[in-house]
Amino acid sequence: MIRIGLIGFGYWGPNLARNLMATPGVALAAIADNRAERRAVAASRYPQVRIVGDAEELIGDPGLDAVVVATSVSTHFELSMAAVKAGKHVLVEKPLAASAVEAAALVEAAEHDQRVLMVDHTYAYTGAVAKMTEIIARGDLGEVCYYDSIRINLGLFQNDVSVIWDLAVHDLSILQALLRKPFRTVQASGGCHLGSRLENVAHLTLELEGGMQAHVNVSWIAPVKIRQTIVVGDRQMLVYDDLEPDEKIKIYDRGVSFDAQPASLLPEYRIGDMYAPRVDRREALANVCAHFAECIAHGGRPRTGGLEGLEIVRVLEAAQESLRSGGRQVTL
Amino acid sequence: MIRIGLIGFGYWGPNLARNLMATPGVALAAIADNRAERRAVAASRYPQVRIVGDAEELIGDPGLDAVVVATSVSTHFELSMAAVKAGKHVLVEKPLAASAVEAAALVEAAEHDQRVLMVDHTYAYTGAVAKMTEIIARGDLGEVCYYDSIRINLGLFQNDVSVIWDLAVHDLSILQALLRKPFRTVQASGGCHLGSRLENVAHLTLELEGGMQAHVNVSWIAPVKIRQTIVVGDRQMLVYDDLEPDEKIKIYDRGVSFDAQPASLLPEYRIGDMYAPRVDRREALANVCAHFAECIAHGGRPRTGGLEGLEIVRVLEAAQESLRSGGRQVTL
Amino acid sequence: MIRIGLIGFGYWGPNLARNLMATPGVALAAIADNRAERRAVAASRYPQVRIVGDAEELIGDPGLDAVVVATSVSTHFELSMAAVKAGKHVLVEKPLAASAVEAAALVEAAEHDQRVLMVDHTYAYTGAVAKMTEIIARGDLGEVCYYDSIRINLGLFQNDVSVIWDLAVHDLSILQALLRKPFRTVQASGGCHLGSRLENVAHLTLELEGGMQAHVNVSWIAPVKIRQTIVVGDRQMLVYDDLEPDEKIKIYDRGVSFDAQPASLLPEYRIGDMYAPRVDRREALANVCAHFAECIAHGGRPRTGGLEGLEIVRVLEAAQESLRSGGRQVTL
Amino acid sequence: MIRIGLIGFGYWGPNLARNLMATPGVALAAIADNRAERRAVAASRYPQVRIVGDAEELIGDPGLDAVVVATSVSTHFELSMAAVKAGKHVLVEKPLAASAVEAAALVEAAEHDQRVLMVDHTYAYTGAVAKMTEIIARGDLGEVCYYDSIRINLGLFQNDVSVIWDLAVHDLSILQALLRKPFRTVQASGGCHLGSRLENVAHLTLELEGGMQAHVNVSWIAPVKIRQTIVVGDRQMLVYDDLEPDEKIKIYDRGVSFDAQPASLLPEYRIGDMYAPRVDRREALANVCAHFAECIAHGGRPRTGGLEGLEIVRVLEAAQESLRSGGRQVTL
Repeated sequence: MIRIGLIGFGYWGPNLARNLMATPGVALAAIADNRAERRAVAASRYPQVRIVGDAEELIGDPGLDAVVVATSVSTHFELSMAAVKAGKHVLVEKPLAASAVEAAALVEAAEHDQRVLMVDHTYAYTGAVAKMTEIIARGDLGEVCYYDSIRINLGLFQNDVSVIWDLAVHDLSILQALLRKPFRTVQASGGCHLGSRLENVAHLTLELEGGMQAHVNVSWIAPVKIRQTIVVGDRQMLVYDDLEPDEKIKIYDRGVSFDAQPASLLPEYRIGDMYAPRVDRREALANVCAHFAECIAHGGRPRTGGLEGLEIVRVLEAAQESLRSGGRQVTL
Repeated sequence: MIRIGLIGFGYWGPNLARNLMATPGVALAAIADNRAERRAVAASRYPQVRIVGDAEELIGDPGLDAVVVATSVSTHFELSMAAVKAGKHVLVEKPLAASAVEAAALVEAAEHDQRVLMVDHTYAYTGAVAKMTEIIARGDLGEVCYYDSIRINLGLFQNDVSVIWDLAVHDLSILQALLRKPFRTVQASGGCHLGSRLENVAHLTLELEGGMQAHVNVSWIAPVKIRQTIVVGDRQMLVYDDLEPDEKIKIYDRGVSFDAQPASLLPEYRIGDMYAPRVDRREALANVCAHFAECIAHGGRPRTGGLEGLEIVRVLEAAQESLRSGGRQVTL
Repeated sequence: MIRIGLIGFGYWGPNLARNLMATPGVALAAIADNRAERRAVAASRYPQVRIVGDAEELIGDPGLDAVVVATSVSTHFELSMAAVKAGKHVLVEKPLAASAVEAAALVEAAEHDQRVLMVDHTYAYTGAVAKMTEIIARGDLGEVCYYDSIRINLGLFQNDVSVIWDLAVHDLSILQALLRKPFRTVQASGGCHLGSRLENVAHLTLELEGGMQAHVNVSWIAPVKIRQTIVVGDRQMLVYDDLEPDEKIKIYDRGVSFDAQPASLLPEYRIGDMYAPRVDRREALANVCAHFAECIAHGGRPRTGGLEGLEIVRVLEAAQESLRSGGRQVTL
Repeated sequence: MIRIGLIGFGYWGPNLARNLMATPGVALAAIADNRAERRAVAASRYPQVRIVGDAEELIGDPGLDAVVVATSVSTHFELSMAAVKAGKHVLVEKPLAASAVEAAALVEAAEHDQRVLMVDHTYAYTGAVAKMTEIIARGDLGEVCYYDSIRINLGLFQNDVSVIWDLAVHDLSILQALLRKPFRTVQASGGCHLGSRLENVAHLTLELEGGMQAHVNVSWIAPVKIRQTIVVGDRQMLVYDDLEPDEKIKIYDRGVSFDAQPASLLPEYRIGDMYAPRVDRREALANVCAHFAECIAHGGRPRTGGLEGLEIVRVLEAAQESLRSGGRQVTL
């Protein structure tokens, strides 16, 4: 039985607690939050779990094997580093840290102490991303050349970071899971609207190794919620709509042919069938918790480990740099 | 009765012909197309209209008052200039010309000869844009700070221009109609995918006078057709979906308040009612033709005249320049 | 060249005229309408076609080979019978006639005079119905056991018949095309709401030979337009949504298994992939006109001939009888 | 503090337990289920709650004030009657009982012993139904003349009752909440498809006092999930789509006018604006639990008490009778 302590019982912490409770081989043994009202909620929901106010106390508890960090981004580094140094395996809510320097230090520390360091890139563990990874690996789309994602809604769920650090991280981790190709450049534009101090809308244009291009649109100031991604290959195209209850992924047998393009009125494009494969509906966070437990138990490397987390923090930092410099393309 | 000659009976010409035929006070007197098969189609559809192969012949016809140019972009300048010089009023399919130099010359010539020069910015004449203009002018949205538009589908409808010159022009003309504010900067990224020589996907970030920001996503390589625009004001927000048969415009009484943002878990945002006003369903091109006839008859300035056409060509040129220079922000 | 005269240039007539004009081997030679303003519209649109006010004159014209009847239902019989007796082939807008007695007389007359008698059951000629017929014939759905259709919107398009005679006829003709099984019983309920004299909403429950059941919901008083049909087979199920621009037919690899149903909490149901085959987008009415011309030219029996039209009129009559008798099941 | 015991921890029981736990003034003190595996789930989720196998034991517990019955329909009567006789207030999952005789006996017993008897007609406690009730009461729709509801999906969630007893009860309780008019007649058709012993698809046509008509379509054999209701008034119409995350209710300023209906081509119908009011998103079951507690604490009559439950059971029985007799209209 792996004994786990959870730090942070705010927005995401309760979801982690619920899933950790249901993960075989795992015991949620302690929860820390420095807000009394959140501790009260945790206590009423989990009367059998030890609730503390001080994260240090939890980290120092010799009875715990691992720590899950679900606090605001600015504290990820300090808490995770302390936990690794205290000999704990660590699962950190995304993004891994507030800077690449911090993230790299965490990777090094975990490597040195042989602790599991995993980032909760939740989307990488959805049934939809698993199915798309399988589709792309099988070559159904042909060579993937373009990815375009819209991730917008109304709300500000993070006070200390821009929308890029909150929402774009999802697309970066999906791209990482789908293609396993390094990011090469990033360019960003954005705006701080409606009186916000931080960017609440942003557009990123990315290039990956091999020339593939990606665009990511994130926003907290949209009146409607959209989670839609288009992946274009030279054989087929797909649309992934995360808000669709049933048909999350649709693969279109459609394409454009430019081979013999004369001065005709209309292009040679092909409209064929559409196909929506069944997608595993298991909650992604259940998969995250199970994978973390599995890596601890059998010593494996997490699919979204420190290095993956570090790469994404590097892209986020570069995007922020581009944003601040008027949209200059930044090479990674 | 205003006697009009139409040059070009390819993709858009037939729509213009049909609407010109139905415009009171207008007679479609001649159609020119240099392709025999298109002339045959025109002749069978309009046995009473004179059909010629040579545009010069039509332009030189003293019996015509006006000429409508619906040919490929590269020929807009030459044909329109010849028509103005022959004393005709001119309606040109969008964009006005292939370069700002050409567009400016047309504006000057029309001004000099006191001819009506109008651009067929079709979207500016839709019921939806009219309704949105009214809503914004009335202050329902408050101060408009952000516009984000997606205009994607599968297809290549122009052989001589990139997707920016084909599709982004729609959003530029909508922005022009809605806000009547000059464009200040543009930044663009894009790609030539699936073997295309010209950009078939692009993203534009624009700034307008007064600080308002706009983003436009255009693509010919999307498996699904989307025509969706979000307009954000500091009081309300709206979504305009041109593919919705009935509720094209939805106004959301939603907003975010940052006034007293403490370190709370969730932002102070407001979710209120939604309202979809009835939108006039008259075909936009019918309004275009009627407005052209009206300007000729009563000597008015078209709402989308030479100057409006020139401004948009300048933005398109600047966008193309940004695209070619790796995404540099270009000031207009 | 088959010379055709069209009677009726109201709502549907113009669509027939446009398609007849474009049908190879067919010449639209005359149009009759007893309303001067409709004749004016016809004349301006087709200056080369002879326009008359009196249907008799058209029917008696020895230069015509065939007549298309697109008038109100109550006049279908008289005009079609006169045309057959005048030696013309006849295409009648649906439904064939206002009663089974009339319809049977038309069938007999056409049979006797060896004239083509065809009903414009438009939906039977759509790409979607053709594709569904192919899917069912191939056995993809297994044994088809249930059909449920919703055909509702706002509007009254016929003044002399109830919504059953106007809209349910579409579903009856689709069922006929898909399954080729005789109707056995019909039961109907309905209402005359908002001050209407005739039923403007109705529900039909039908049984076909072999035990298959169908339900049809038609309405003119719905605030939204819906055209959705579910076809349930014992292997797969499909949904046909005629308002979907692209994916009109979706086949679901879903089912329920009752074999080993113990007192479990949830049933053994199967959620598999979904598949949307490409559907031919050619306008159905073009197919109707081409098929009529083909039957005349080569002497074939129309797929929706007099007998098919008669069967549907019998069901409509029985439905009306059930409606008037408080929902009694009527055997055909 | 009201101490409550819950009988049944199958499909719905866990939702009741979760909401009872969160209801102020209520303590979930005991859970009974005769299946060991369900008791194990309950125990792991609520270690502080007493878990028993025998419902009798729970009912006989003098420390409990009230009992919630969430078992299969056939056992509702016996358990609820025993609880009332043991002096408990009772909340029963819908429908109240398996027959009108049983339901009437429960009503009488609760009346006699002055116990609160409430039925969990969950939909009557949704924000959407509350909002529609308000809209109708305010007269926004004018006189309501027609209600049409579609409630279909894939699945069999009850083993001992037909789809009518499972799903139609929702619409009956919504109608009851919206209009507070007695049901007068019911007529039903249905089918037992795919090898089922019980009806898994059904259509009900109902008449309410004053002539209003309603139609309800329920099915367990549809490949897609639909929860859509149309309410037609003589001033406006509304559509309620329970699957819409945000705009559940849309009110259409649309109507048809038959006053001066000449033999025109198109009816006089009116297409105006659409309006989607904000709907309270609180979980309906939370409202159910709070209302039950409130009625116990202050002695009020539940909005969905025994009489309301009895009326609905009477309609269900009559619908089943109509179904079995070939669709005969049954008067209530």
